[in-house]
Amino acid sequence: MHFADALTLKIEELQNPSVVGLDPRINQIPEFLIVKHKKQFGANVKALTASILEFNIGIIEAIKDIVPAVKPQIAFYEALGPEGVWVFEATCKYAKSQGMIVIADAKRNDIGSTCEAYAEAFLGEINVFGEKFRPFSTDAVTVTPYLGSDGINPFVKKCAEFGKGIFVLVKTSNPSSGELQDLAIGDEMVHEYLAQLVAGWGQDLIGNSGLSSVGAVVGATYPEEARFLRTLMPNTFFLVPGYGAQGGGAEDVKPCFLPHGRGAIVNSSRDIIFAYEKDKKYGSENFADAARAAAKKMKEALQIVYE
Amino acid sequence: MHFADALTLKIEELQNPSVVGLDPRINQIPEFLIVKHKKQFGANVKALTASILEFNIGIIEAIKDIVPAVKPQIAFYEALGPEGVWVFEATCKYAKSQGMIVIADAKRNDIGSTCEAYAEAFLGEINVFGEKFRPFSTDAVTVTPYLGSDGINPFVKKCAEFGKGIFVLVKTSNPSSGELQDLAIGDEMVHEYLAQLVAGWGQDLIGNSGLSSVGAVVGATYPEEARFLRTLMPNTFFLVPGYGAQGGGAEDVKPCFLPHGRGAIVNSSRDIIFAYEKDKKYGSENFADAARAAAKKMKEALQIVYE
Repeated sequence: MHFADALTLKIEELQNPSVVGLDPRINQIPEFLIVKHKKQFGANVKALTASILEFNIGIIEAIKDIVPAVKPQIAFYEALGPEGVWVFEATCKYAKSQGMIVIADAKRNDIGSTCEAYAEAFLGEINVFGEKFRPFSTDAVTVTPYLGSDGINPFVKKCAEFGKGIFVLVKTSNPSSGELQDLAIGDEMVHEYLAQLVAGWGQDLIGNSGLSSVGAVVGATYPEEARFLRTLMPNTFFLVPGYGAQGGGAEDVKPCFLPHGRGAIVNSSRDIIFAYEKDKKYGSENFADAARAAAKKMKEALQIVYE
Repeated sequence: MHFADALTLKIEELQNPSVVGLDPRINQIPEFLIVKHKKQFGANVKALTASILEFNIGIIEAIKDIVPAVKPQIAFYEALGPEGVWVFEATCKYAKSQGMIVIADAKRNDIGSTCEAYAEAFLGEINVFGEKFRPFSTDAVTVTPYLGSDGINPFVKKCAEFGKGIFVLVKTSNPSSGELQDLAIGDEMVHEYLAQLVAGWGQDLIGNSGLSSVGAVVGATYPEEARFLRTLMPNTFFLVPGYGAQGGGAEDVKPCFLPHGRGAIVNSSRDIIFAYEKDKKYGSENFADAARAAAKKMKEALQIVYE
């Protein structure tokens, strides 16, 4: 399968160009889960990671018929050490078993054979005594561009080989994104120059959808830039962070889309998975119901991109 | 303790400004180790990760009285999935128990609370039911700058709190590093502009050694740039990749150093840990002896920086 085609199909099937970030900040995981696993495993890391896994499975079950993809942010799992990385993989595997597309938000980058190793980890497979082994059950990974094409090509190669995808950071949603990304090189900014490189890197991976499996991260918080970047990267799938908690709204993300709501997917993390904290009528036991309601609300708001 | 001071002391104690990259490419691990662990664990990933751990411990034992620091590249561990990440941590823990300084080559980057999570993972600790827990036994981590200061400050904060360090990618050793890093912004290049940011980010973390715990990655393959970067970052510790296998020699790394061989540490990976492949007199069973000899040779070559 071709990643951008598969993602396009799944989005069209559910009429919902959104992705839910599975970012399990431990102090926001419902207390009852932690109490339960502490009883089972003791006062240790395992109790925390088991709580996260049950939480994630609850979220996945609640949204899988509404939302096409999840985007676990590996930093929150690594903050629990190797045990946390197990739960990252268990989460990815579960989401895939439920038919969801899994985008690892890992912002990996390196060069040469090291870059190949990352590409094997998140997009490929390794040979274990003659058997194929997938290190992580992920369909795509976010990638940082600072090293140039030496840090991109090994990922692109694995995308082609295994039908996987990457999203290259182009213009991020954070306040200081401009410090490097907006530097002026002649008439254009660094991120605009990079956008053209990204379009080139993805040239050979354009599928039937007209979209490439080499995507770009373009923040919802800079809609004017997004409009221009869309013209520089007409065949690029945009992964759009910054919706919701970071301040971007449905109108702000619209410039990221191609006609008919194609070519972009909007992420929301906290506002969905921890919706129970804001909408008190649910209570923490019903965190999954709260997430489902929030996911539905986001879907409705995003229907604007189909207009 | 202050990271840059601790690293300086350790380098001066051993009179050796080098760091060995623990990059366990699985197809270069001596066959006898894999056969042994396959017997014990079966034909599975565990047999591979156990082989890597025994290999790493052998290398650490062989070099610990010569080399001040190791730099495990996490990509090669992630390529073996969560089991591989366990062995990454087991390796770091072992190196620390032997008095070595451990630099995680992970090139992490993200913003806000996600960046904090990475900083907790590699530099800090988390609270597990009232007990302090260190997710990874590492003293420093490499960091990518594309997101600007939002992606640096959380790391800097943890450095200050826990006496740890970071190395920010400034000018990397790979052929395509110039694609973004050398773009001209007015009179200077992106990486030169960034160098000044790095100097600023590290301003408050300068120790008794005169060096900051906010370091920079500056490749051995661009000695002219290194010379100029040294003037832009007079208090910055340089982590220098590209020596040996990538083509840089002892003369090439000299411009990275301050007077009296201070302020820089040069990495070599393959040429040390897989030295047994090139120097056939050792044989794969004596991979550790071969590594020791190669580490000594590198130390000798680097004495040039003390002249």
